[in-house]
Amino acid sequence: MSQRGRFITFEGTEGMGKSTQLAIAAASLRAAGINVLVTREPGGTPMAEAIRELLLAPRDEPVHELTELLLMFAARAQHLHTRILPALTAGQWVLCDRFTDATFAYQGGGRGTPAERIGLLETLVQGELRPDHIVLLDAPVETGMARARKRGELDRFEQETVEFFDRIRATYLQRARREPQRYHIVDAGQPLARVSADVKRLCQDIAIL
Amino acid sequence: MSQRGRFITFEGTEGMGKSTQLAIAAASLRAAGINVLVTREPGGTPMAEAIRELLLAPRDEPVHELTELLLMFAARAQHLHTRILPALTAGQWVLCDRFTDATFAYQGGGRGTPAERIGLLETLVQGELRPDHIVLLDAPVETGMARARKRGELDRFEQETVEFFDRIRATYLQRARREPQRYHIVDAGQPLARVSADVKRLCQDIAIL
Repeated sequence: MSQRGRFITFEGTEGMGKSTQLAIAAASLRAAGINVLVTREPGGTPMAEAIRELLLAPRDEPVHELTELLLMFAARAQHLHTRILPALTAGQWVLCDRFTDATFAYQGGGRGTPAERIGLLETLVQGELRPDHIVLLDAPVETGMARARKRGELDRFEQETVEFFDRIRATYLQRARREPQRYHIVDAGQPLARVSADVKRLCQDIAIL
Repeated sequence: MSQRGRFITFEGTEGMGKSTQLAIAAASLRAAGINVLVTREPGGTPMAEAIRELLLAPRDEPVHELTELLLMFAARAQHLHTRILPALTAGQWVLCDRFTDATFAYQGGGRGTPAERIGLLETLVQGELRPDHIVLLDAPVETGMARARKRGELDRFEQETVEFFDRIRATYLQRARREPQRYHIVDAGQPLARVSADVKRLCQDIAIL
């Protein structure tokens, strides 16, 4: 029987380089002989990706706060139970671009949804499961927004204000400071080579834990 | 200030004639001078209808029980908060083809999702709001399935077995018997003219309450 794999998530506001750093982490762990599954939220299965499209598409109809929250957890339930958990059980490590911390940060900090509501759905969908490690790529919001704008068309979230993203960043940092053994804050404002070096070192530390 | 409108839902297994009877009820109430909004679940707004399509489309990927449940309530949150509640507050009566009873019957009775889970989401999305009246169109499952098959292509739910729909019917009846003042069971196995006459009489009774 194989040992359960580790569950590592990557978090941060827009344009922090999550995808790039996640790819670097995956390469680094694979080089150490670890079997890695790379995935993302919302999404990760065809059904969950269809929910992602519903969530991100700019639309005329205002989306109610509860609708957004329930759609996030619907996508998460599908992804977690049909893809992440089977991989972890088979001994694979799962590296996921965003997870429930993003819900606490975006819907909680950003939109003002009470954290207890989010916690209630977290328990409903995940039971006791939480990520083993959370890599938080952190830098001032303006740095990331400038990068996101360069990528072209903005989705429904990227169209939000600086104040919205400031609240999200504050929520991420608050959560990270509360549990320093699970959260790893990486300074994403450094030159790219330095950020990548920090992420590689972090992966080595985690791999020998 | 206008008085709050009444919220009346129509329930039953496949092919019970819900849509037909709902139209008859709406006409009957309008003839009595009542301002009526007719709508349906899952759906009722463009966003909620898009969620409906996700739910009903036959797909290769097995849909996890929690995903289905959360999508149902995501559609409901959008519909309830952006369409049903504003209408009721403005004094309109709302006639809705299916609501949370269908979730208890289909996801609870049909799929085996614990009723407490459904109740938890019901409270999260609806608070204290419950339909004022529930019209349950009831007949043996086979009667309805034969009608549904005649309509052509079957959706993801209509493809289920007779046993699945028997459990749904049993759940509906159990709920109806527990609260006879809110639930009105109509025998949908009668000739159409009789069913319609029963529904019209019921509407008259409700309108003078």
